[in-house]
Amino acid sequence: MSICVLYGGNRIDGNTETITKKVIQELNVEEIYLIDYRIEPIVDKRHAPEGFPEVHDDYNAIIERILPHQVLIFSTPIYWYSMTSVMKSFIDRWSQTSRDANYPNFKKIMAEKKAYVIAVGGDNPYIKGLPMIQQFQHIFDFIGAEFSGYIIGEGNKPGEINNDLNALHAAEQLREKLRNS
Amino acid sequence: MSICVLYGGNRIDGNTETITKKVIQELNVEEIYLIDYRIEPIVDKRHAPEGFPEVHDDYNAIIERILPHQVLIFSTPIYWYSMTSVMKSFIDRWSQTSRDANYPNFKKIMAEKKAYVIAVGGDNPYIKGLPMIQQFQHIFDFIGAEFSGYIIGEGNKPGEINNDLNALHAAEQLREKLRNS
Amino acid sequence: MSICVLYGGNRIDGNTETITKKVIQELNVEEIYLIDYRIEPIVDKRHAPEGFPEVHDDYNAIIERILPHQVLIFSTPIYWYSMTSVMKSFIDRWSQTSRDANYPNFKKIMAEKKAYVIAVGGDNPYIKGLPMIQQFQHIFDFIGAEFSGYIIGEGNKPGEINNDLNALHAAEQLREKLRNS
Amino acid sequence: MSICVLYGGNRIDGNTETITKKVIQELNVEEIYLIDYRIEPIVDKRHAPEGFPEVHDDYNAIIERILPHQVLIFSTPIYWYSMTSVMKSFIDRWSQTSRDANYPNFKKIMAEKKAYVIAVGGDNPYIKGLPMIQQFQHIFDFIGAEFSGYIIGEGNKPGEINNDLNALHAAEQLREKLRNS
Repeated sequence: MSICVLYGGNRIDGNTETITKKVIQELNVEEIYLIDYRIEPIVDKRHAPEGFPEVHDDYNAIIERILPHQVLIFSTPIYWYSMTSVMKSFIDRWSQTSRDANYPNFKKIMAEKKAYVIAVGGDNPYIKGLPMIQQFQHIFDFIGAEFSGYIIGEGNKPGEINNDLNALHAAEQLREKLRNS
Repeated sequence: MSICVLYGGNRIDGNTETITKKVIQELNVEEIYLIDYRIEPIVDKRHAPEGFPEVHDDYNAIIERILPHQVLIFSTPIYWYSMTSVMKSFIDRWSQTSRDANYPNFKKIMAEKKAYVIAVGGDNPYIKGLPMIQQFQHIFDFIGAEFSGYIIGEGNKPGEINNDLNALHAAEQLREKLRNS
Repeated sequence: MSICVLYGGNRIDGNTETITKKVIQELNVEEIYLIDYRIEPIVDKRHAPEGFPEVHDDYNAIIERILPHQVLIFSTPIYWYSMTSVMKSFIDRWSQTSRDANYPNFKKIMAEKKAYVIAVGGDNPYIKGLPMIQQFQHIFDFIGAEFSGYIIGEGNKPGEINNDLNALHAAEQLREKLRNS
Repeated sequence: MSICVLYGGNRIDGNTETITKKVIQELNVEEIYLIDYRIEPIVDKRHAPEGFPEVHDDYNAIIERILPHQVLIFSTPIYWYSMTSVMKSFIDRWSQTSRDANYPNFKKIMAEKKAYVIAVGGDNPYIKGLPMIQQFQHIFDFIGAEFSGYIIGEGNKPGEINNDLNALHAAEQLREKLRNS
């Protein structure tokens, strides 16, 4: 299966990126660091007569890159108890793409994908990260994608994720699963 | 009590704004429409030796405006099952302000505030909006503010919130509470 | 529509019963106080060759009474952050009834019902009662019933629910809805 | 540390018991199978002038057995998306013990304990078991115990838990942690 990772991290070499790299090592993966791109917040014109305007940013180029893949990995620190604003900006814009004549099959294509979430947090993520997991479940339900699994890890300072043996093992298991699929 | 409303809406006259206006009518309130400002996503430098750089956007000006108030109302559509990315960008930046020498008492001041959430969604918000409410609870717990109440409403097309009688009544109750506090 | 209330309360005239009575006043409703009956905990024989044994308690008689109704109202205090054990004992036994040759259409009949939850708690129920609401959503999803709405109220000592004006208003709204359906 | 396991399972050799046995193998542990005892549902007399009556069942004997231990493991199948009614009956009665003159230090003693949850479910437990984890968090917060960790596993038919490698690994990790504490 063809795999794409969307990194939502707000810093280089964060714990979430570290564990995600363990998941994808030696796999053929397309990696997208959302922080490197300009993604405007959505201006919601669903109910406006003129419809959505064209937005001159990098969003559509990222959409083009994720659409061909069968597996999407959403890799985000648990930031203020949900995904980062950069990743949220990206997902919010799906409301626009769903109505964009240039992507008539957007929802249909998204519905064929398998989605994973990898998330590391520093403040009791195994409890306080659960609402975010439930949010992702609702997101994937809406778009029709299969929520195939998630990894929660604990870490705050750079490298701390390496102390979370359960998360590391789950990363190894996910790598096996992706390699054999 | 002095009240500030933070609007996270992605469109003019959305349902969330409509019901929020009912809550604050005839009250003396400072209103901030986040979509009108440029708020950069955080670049997380908490663990970088150089620390956070100065960011040239409108974020600090908004912080200055909210700090004097005793009550903060977070008014956001339930967008992809959480707050909008605009509001999330604003909250994510609190990580920076918490370490900003220009705001040495940021957390202390925030901890004295009462916070409310007003949120309207179109896809079964009374169930699918609950993870967002839990997320806000964790946010306010972290910053030390009191989560004094929330209103969930249902609506999709403009004006539909006016059919949600429970939400309208809750808005009326909240208005009474704010007026008498 | 024909309505049945299942009371899970552990005491007489508790707050949950009080507000439920407001919902059903002047409506024609069958009321079942689970605490008045003997309901054995399930002994799970789903995977045992001999299957489930007959249980000599009041459970089946209650099932007979709820099956004819189109609306089920689950009225339970939020007790240790979920429904009471009496109500949980009742629901757990559905696993047995689902395989009981005497009730071959159990799931089909349950799937035609509309379900409501009325729940009052004393410890920040608007936040800490939310996992229970999510639990009920999963229960109704599994059995196929429609989760048509819920009321959360706050109260601890007898009568305190009368101070929760939002809950009382929601009760009034639900009564109107049931009366007109 | 002294460890006590409370089994809430409704059947012999269920998946939850299987994985719990892996956690405690070769450790010195007191095991209590709640299904083997008679635990009456609470009759809530917190606000009744006469107070709680003495209940002639096995509940207090179980309380006596758990109080001396420093670690409590709540081992329950995810049954209708929460703990079994047997375990819930046991916990509900804590409301009585908290006011029982024979156990004046009940809450103080409970507050010194570390609590773990081990839970296996058959219907997407990694998502649909999360409200139960949140319920346990609220329970332990109320009683003051530390929620030190949890394991969710997937399995339905007997033995299926052995296919959930992540859960098995987490069991092994927890065993190491308990052995060294």
